[in-house]
Amino acid sequence: MKKSLGAKALLYPTPVTVIGTYDIDGKPNAATVAWVGIVCSQPPCVGISMRKATYTYGAIMSRRAFTLNIPSEEFISKVDYLGLASGRDENKLANAGLTPVESTLVDAPYIKDFPMVLECKVINVVEIGLHTQFIGEIVDVKMEESLLDESGQSSIKKVRPFFYAPDDRFYYSLGEKLEKSFESGKKYLKKNQG
Amino acid sequence: MKKSLGAKALLYPTPVTVIGTYDIDGKPNAATVAWVGIVCSQPPCVGISMRKATYTYGAIMSRRAFTLNIPSEEFISKVDYLGLASGRDENKLANAGLTPVESTLVDAPYIKDFPMVLECKVINVVEIGLHTQFIGEIVDVKMEESLLDESGQSSIKKVRPFFYAPDDRFYYSLGEKLEKSFESGKKYLKKNQG
Repeated sequence: MKKSLGAKALLYPTPVTVIGTYDIDGKPNAATVAWVGIVCSQPPCVGISMRKATYTYGAIMSRRAFTLNIPSEEFISKVDYLGLASGRDENKLANAGLTPVESTLVDAPYIKDFPMVLECKVINVVEIGLHTQFIGEIVDVKMEESLLDESGQSSIKKVRPFFYAPDDRFYYSLGEKLEKSFESGKKYLKKNQG
Repeated sequence: MKKSLGAKALLYPTPVTVIGTYDIDGKPNAATVAWVGIVCSQPPCVGISMRKATYTYGAIMSRRAFTLNIPSEEFISKVDYLGLASGRDENKLANAGLTPVESTLVDAPYIKDFPMVLECKVINVVEIGLHTQFIGEIVDVKMEESLLDESGQSSIKKVRPFFYAPDDRFYYSLGEKLEKSFESGKKYLKKNQG
């Protein structure tokens, strides 16, 4: 029997990402964002949702670009801080001891310390409610070379991202590798059922 | 040193969700979707991206509603199947032995067997590229009562959702509870740095 929990923004899990931007004066900033998802495969696009009150909202509106950085578990406290403070009030990257690097592809900095980054150009701005969604075309994905295998293949286990549960507001780690997708369900296909 | 992997739709992780719809004839259908994310807190909204070629795309366009079901790990093969086959060709819910339940709030069925569901009304349709994003206002979240604690609080650990890595195309489990968000980063706040 299912019980109603009311109308709320609850998804299990949300990714934990850090959005890199330049403000109107060119100062690099970083903000933690969990309202994120892939929204298109061709062109590859990611959607990130921001409140208008945030410093990052203004930065994205002026530069029409952002980076989406995926931090590993070891940076959890620094990432939490990047979601607590505003770039309006303090130099968050300096306080957290993180190093911004200028992207050569988009008008935004990425975080050198984190293992992975998506460099994004804003192609659409969708007004929804409290949050505005920026749809960013992913013009490149970059990953720490030491985390790729010999054939250049990336691996979530090596990146060790962490996740957010919007109800208890705890972060969670990645667990075990389970089954192969587009494979394990084949036994249910009608043509396999005789 | 970061290495370029090219322009691709890669995020770690994506949630694994099952979208419930009625088709134009009222037949319940379910499709696995990973291009998903929370897009707004007020009103609470989720975005799901579908290719126009899918059966679910047509169903959502005609009914302007869907349910977003979150399956637990035990259903992994059935969920994989729901992403492999099309409701145009077969009765996926029957083949997988899953039971649709009519929502009293939106014009879509949810999956009785899965622990959690978001009932959604489409409030915006965003054309992006290969994928179209449906923005659904979450009018209710329902969860199996047996998974709630005595105070009615939900828990990701009890739901046991699983995730998808778009590069190796494997499913992954939830790991351990880590730090509390909006807490563990406080030590970096300027006012705490003296």
